[in-house]
Amino acid sequence: MSVSVFDHPVLSGLLGDTETADLFSVSSDIAAMLGFEVALARAEAGEGVISPATADAIEQACRTFEPDIGSLRETTARDGVVVPGLVEQLKRRVGPEHAEAVHRGASSQDVIDSSLAQRLKAVARVADRRLDAVTAGFDRLIDAYGDHRLTGRTRMKIAVGIRVRDRVEAWRAPLVRHRQRLSEAAPRACALQFGGAAGTLAALGDKGPAVAAGIAAALDLTLPTASWHSQRDNLVEFADCLAAITGSLGKLGQDVALMAQDEIAEIELSGGGSSSIMPHKKNPVAAEVLVALARFAAVLVSAMHHALIHEQERSGTAWTLEWMTLPQICLAATAALATTDRLLGSVQGIGSAK
Amino acid sequence: MSVSVFDHPVLSGLLGDTETADLFSVSSDIAAMLGFEVALARAEAGEGVISPATADAIEQACRTFEPDIGSLRETTARDGVVVPGLVEQLKRRVGPEHAEAVHRGASSQDVIDSSLAQRLKAVARVADRRLDAVTAGFDRLIDAYGDHRLTGRTRMKIAVGIRVRDRVEAWRAPLVRHRQRLSEAAPRACALQFGGAAGTLAALGDKGPAVAAGIAAALDLTLPTASWHSQRDNLVEFADCLAAITGSLGKLGQDVALMAQDEIAEIELSGGGSSSIMPHKKNPVAAEVLVALARFAAVLVSAMHHALIHEQERSGTAWTLEWMTLPQICLAATAALATTDRLLGSVQGIGSAK
Amino acid sequence: MSVSVFDHPVLSGLLGDTETADLFSVSSDIAAMLGFEVALARAEAGEGVISPATADAIEQACRTFEPDIGSLRETTARDGVVVPGLVEQLKRRVGPEHAEAVHRGASSQDVIDSSLAQRLKAVARVADRRLDAVTAGFDRLIDAYGDHRLTGRTRMKIAVGIRVRDRVEAWRAPLVRHRQRLSEAAPRACALQFGGAAGTLAALGDKGPAVAAGIAAALDLTLPTASWHSQRDNLVEFADCLAAITGSLGKLGQDVALMAQDEIAEIELSGGGSSSIMPHKKNPVAAEVLVALARFAAVLVSAMHHALIHEQERSGTAWTLEWMTLPQICLAATAALATTDRLLGSVQGIGSAK
Amino acid sequence: MSVSVFDHPVLSGLLGDTETADLFSVSSDIAAMLGFEVALARAEAGEGVISPATADAIEQACRTFEPDIGSLRETTARDGVVVPGLVEQLKRRVGPEHAEAVHRGASSQDVIDSSLAQRLKAVARVADRRLDAVTAGFDRLIDAYGDHRLTGRTRMKIAVGIRVRDRVEAWRAPLVRHRQRLSEAAPRACALQFGGAAGTLAALGDKGPAVAAGIAAALDLTLPTASWHSQRDNLVEFADCLAAITGSLGKLGQDVALMAQDEIAEIELSGGGSSSIMPHKKNPVAAEVLVALARFAAVLVSAMHHALIHEQERSGTAWTLEWMTLPQICLAATAALATTDRLLGSVQGIGSAK
Repeated sequence: MSVSVFDHPVLSGLLGDTETADLFSVSSDIAAMLGFEVALARAEAGEGVISPATADAIEQACRTFEPDIGSLRETTARDGVVVPGLVEQLKRRVGPEHAEAVHRGASSQDVIDSSLAQRLKAVARVADRRLDAVTAGFDRLIDAYGDHRLTGRTRMKIAVGIRVRDRVEAWRAPLVRHRQRLSEAAPRACALQFGGAAGTLAALGDKGPAVAAGIAAALDLTLPTASWHSQRDNLVEFADCLAAITGSLGKLGQDVALMAQDEIAEIELSGGGSSSIMPHKKNPVAAEVLVALARFAAVLVSAMHHALIHEQERSGTAWTLEWMTLPQICLAATAALATTDRLLGSVQGIGSAK
Repeated sequence: MSVSVFDHPVLSGLLGDTETADLFSVSSDIAAMLGFEVALARAEAGEGVISPATADAIEQACRTFEPDIGSLRETTARDGVVVPGLVEQLKRRVGPEHAEAVHRGASSQDVIDSSLAQRLKAVARVADRRLDAVTAGFDRLIDAYGDHRLTGRTRMKIAVGIRVRDRVEAWRAPLVRHRQRLSEAAPRACALQFGGAAGTLAALGDKGPAVAAGIAAALDLTLPTASWHSQRDNLVEFADCLAAITGSLGKLGQDVALMAQDEIAEIELSGGGSSSIMPHKKNPVAAEVLVALARFAAVLVSAMHHALIHEQERSGTAWTLEWMTLPQICLAATAALATTDRLLGSVQGIGSAK
Repeated sequence: MSVSVFDHPVLSGLLGDTETADLFSVSSDIAAMLGFEVALARAEAGEGVISPATADAIEQACRTFEPDIGSLRETTARDGVVVPGLVEQLKRRVGPEHAEAVHRGASSQDVIDSSLAQRLKAVARVADRRLDAVTAGFDRLIDAYGDHRLTGRTRMKIAVGIRVRDRVEAWRAPLVRHRQRLSEAAPRACALQFGGAAGTLAALGDKGPAVAAGIAAALDLTLPTASWHSQRDNLVEFADCLAAITGSLGKLGQDVALMAQDEIAEIELSGGGSSSIMPHKKNPVAAEVLVALARFAAVLVSAMHHALIHEQERSGTAWTLEWMTLPQICLAATAALATTDRLLGSVQGIGSAK
Repeated sequence: MSVSVFDHPVLSGLLGDTETADLFSVSSDIAAMLGFEVALARAEAGEGVISPATADAIEQACRTFEPDIGSLRETTARDGVVVPGLVEQLKRRVGPEHAEAVHRGASSQDVIDSSLAQRLKAVARVADRRLDAVTAGFDRLIDAYGDHRLTGRTRMKIAVGIRVRDRVEAWRAPLVRHRQRLSEAAPRACALQFGGAAGTLAALGDKGPAVAAGIAAALDLTLPTASWHSQRDNLVEFADCLAAITGSLGKLGQDVALMAQDEIAEIELSGGGSSSIMPHKKNPVAAEVLVALARFAAVLVSAMHHALIHEQERSGTAWTLEWMTLPQICLAATAALATTDRLLGSVQGIGSAK
């Protein structure tokens, strides 16, 4: 099945991003969830909530545990979240002696949000690395063609002459700012979720904060001052930032598609898509992809803002809406960055030297 | 990889729909594209554009042809569409004698849009069948509980007493209207696309209309008066209808979640999701899923309206945006219908008999 | 105050539409609401619910009644709807003898939705008339320039030669279909709302249906089989249709802006916007406006789909969301039609005669 | 005319905000635009671009200048922006001797974006002040009721007991973070726009930067390193932040509406909306308004992200789309803050003391 272009065996070559998609695979998710369970057990053992031997048993079990996916699918259909079924399977794996201690004091949301946070951290790293590469690509363009003449255009009509560096700088500068924003937003979004049944860690008595600190340290996640189970603003800030990256790259794509028009020919690109009926054509495919990804992200970002309306201590609806949306925004952003990198690498000329 | 919940091995159990997802798999797409190529060859042979022997050779080749997916992925990344690579592979398969006649006069868009139209037709059938089932489910509820008393509520406060039939009828009536709308919109959306390089079938001389008629008949698609390559309103109408179905089911889901609140307890559901930390809880998971799907569809429908801004004779950006959006809207709608069917089947009581 | 461009004394000249905006003015709304109250009283008198003398008194009072707007503003802030304050004022106007009979059996929603329905009917008339004018404008273009040569363009690159009629027909055909859709959707959306406290007309006993029929006849609104207070699908269909009109005109706008590029010069427009710094420039302002309106409508339509999630017998949140959105979608559509009419009138040439 | 609820004489009492709406009135806009022209003339006189006497004449003219609004409406319809007509009128006012120096080197976009920046600065101040008030309101709630018991609820079902402080803190904490975000985003968004015809200040030779510095100082705007005419990311960040404020307040509104349900009665509110047919009802109108505003902002924010795709040196379409959207997002946010303040002031009790 491949409903989404990002999961599609063929279209993902055009629109997808293997590196980021892997972060949202079932196996990455399960690995991160089990990582949480191990860190939880270790931290609880450290605070005397469970015994060290139990923590050892849980860690041991998790190390090689490969849950039954078909069964997880069924229990998720029943429970609305994967965690009850996963914990059930894990308890069986751990064995009767220590089973009771598995997942002690944690909610499904603790596991899922903390798994997400671990993977968003990796998404942020991918995005940061590519923002760096793309920025360098712009620098190379400016080095090579910065002084070339270009027609400044406003409202789709010729305005006054500018230099290529002026146009390229208008592509580059927002990405530099986005990179800064991402570096601020990511640590806020990539925070441990640990709140128990209703966010108060009631079941752990006064051990809650210390256990939380232990888990955060083990998973290298930000330790928030409180559980954020119903406070989704940091996630939305992260999504906004990724969508805005995609949008700024859409401006670049739109510009390149306009520059590549035959009568205007202000940019020369190697490669370019061919047509099944007009083999001579060289279509500015990468540029078009950037615009499509930008509009897609601009649409999806709306869902994340709706998901702020997260009622009470846990909203099944708002939370599920995030699952449907956030991974696709991450994909759109990092795929757009990779596409930009390829597009910049294909530039054979911009503007006019004379 | 499983970026989308609809493609996710685990979450698709909760939010997905195998039947509709299969329609958007690579293999279904390729089958429908090859079906187009066969119908094209047959129709062209019928009009003397190519020879019957060539049409036979093409049909023969398509019957067992399994394209190299990895290669399609690469060519799609280059061309922005799968068709040039697919046709290239198909020509090799058909062999040098007849290769030239493969895909004669057709554009990539002809193949892809006509493949989509075939699969939307199946989506419409799935939706229609499920709308029928859901409507019958409402009828059963009315039969069983229609005269029960229910508290009419406005602005989240108790208003005046109503009957269960009043509430259920407010769920049922829009779906009856949506079913009627879908029956009108589907034939418009499920139309042959056949226009050649720029929509005018210029390469086929005066044979174009007859060839088009032949293909439409073979594929059981509506024969439009003209190529709709840059006229996407019928697709948008179809998407609007599916999104509205999902939205109306979201009202049902929201109502059920409110009725299932512990202090209110106006509906009794069997099953219900369990919690990893509070095993006693029975969460109204299906109802929540309906709201989440409705909000997702309400967000995505915006992208389809943006895609109406389809510049010139073929917009790489607007068209690609449809690919990212329309399958997910189809999934949301048919998954919501299936979820509703399950939800209705789980009702053990509504309102109060006295 | 002028937060919206449609209400803005200056920007409404560019983006607004006086005729449709008037339909959403306070005075039009109040006139339509009082029209409902009169029709209600008349119909109730016809069924013996109130006396003919009382109906006369109410009609008499409404004829010259000009409510205190400042006071309505205050009561609306308190009640969330204008009707309680309006009815209060009207009762005082009618006088103690007949006051009790004012608004008998009707809810706030009955008044507001029925006022909306009356005005949407007028919007549909405006749109229909302009669709007719715009279609005729396309016919004139085809008559004058249909055989001219034009460069067919796909994916922003030169494809093959077409005729001007091919491009214009791709603008025209969707609007013809939209006009048909609107003629089907408008009667469904422009329906009487009359349900009383919770949609069941409980307060009127067995007189409800006859009173409803009387009101619908008087206001020339469709008489629905049931109150649609929580069934908003017909409104959404209407909004979808208007947004799609706007979107299809956005395609025209995008095409014209691309054709008007200096190096391409495939269309010649009289007038055109001037620049404060480059007086020689002639910007394709009307074309740009069409694209902006189309994107705005494509965004807003999402809100209408969210508003389908209308919980219980009356959702304060979903209903209020419609008030924020639907008038602006109506404005965008009819303003786009008027802009298109002006744009078509300014065409001095398209394509090349040779 | 009153298409938008924010401009509506009656509905603005419920949904609007006079203070912010005034910032988007024509008179505020004109005052800010004339302020720019004065600052420009002063700065250019400082750099010897124009004479001090000319700058005096321009300042003198602007001080009492009241442009002809009807004429501005007409020229804006023609030009797509108000500035050419405004400058034309201003030049006549200044008189032939100095007219040539008016608006020297500036583009329409310089004037409009810099006017916007001045007013967004005021919006940010309003939002900041109200965020402070709302935060204090939460503190008062915690002081008064923080230790009261409340039912923790997850997925719409009873979970475990919490304290009122837990719920209120989940409302409060995001707003504290949003206030921090706004304090960072506002200076970036509230930046001088000054780039001339195509963003390079070409007409001012080497005087450009000094003139820019002079204008920024006079208008108390951030001096950016370059013109941001086609780089809209700072505006989008600002809009994202305001939409997220509105969204987080929507969570509060949704919670309050759920708490105010008759059978649950976890919050007691004074006032509350009355019904035209059920005078006894007390509807949680303010809470519903918060949800409606949140969903509206969540929809509109999408348009701002689309507007990032701002082609070339000035996009008529993307820029116009901002005009349609950003003021309404500002209104939604500050109206939501004011509504929250009133809502918090109406709380008579939360949770249970025992």
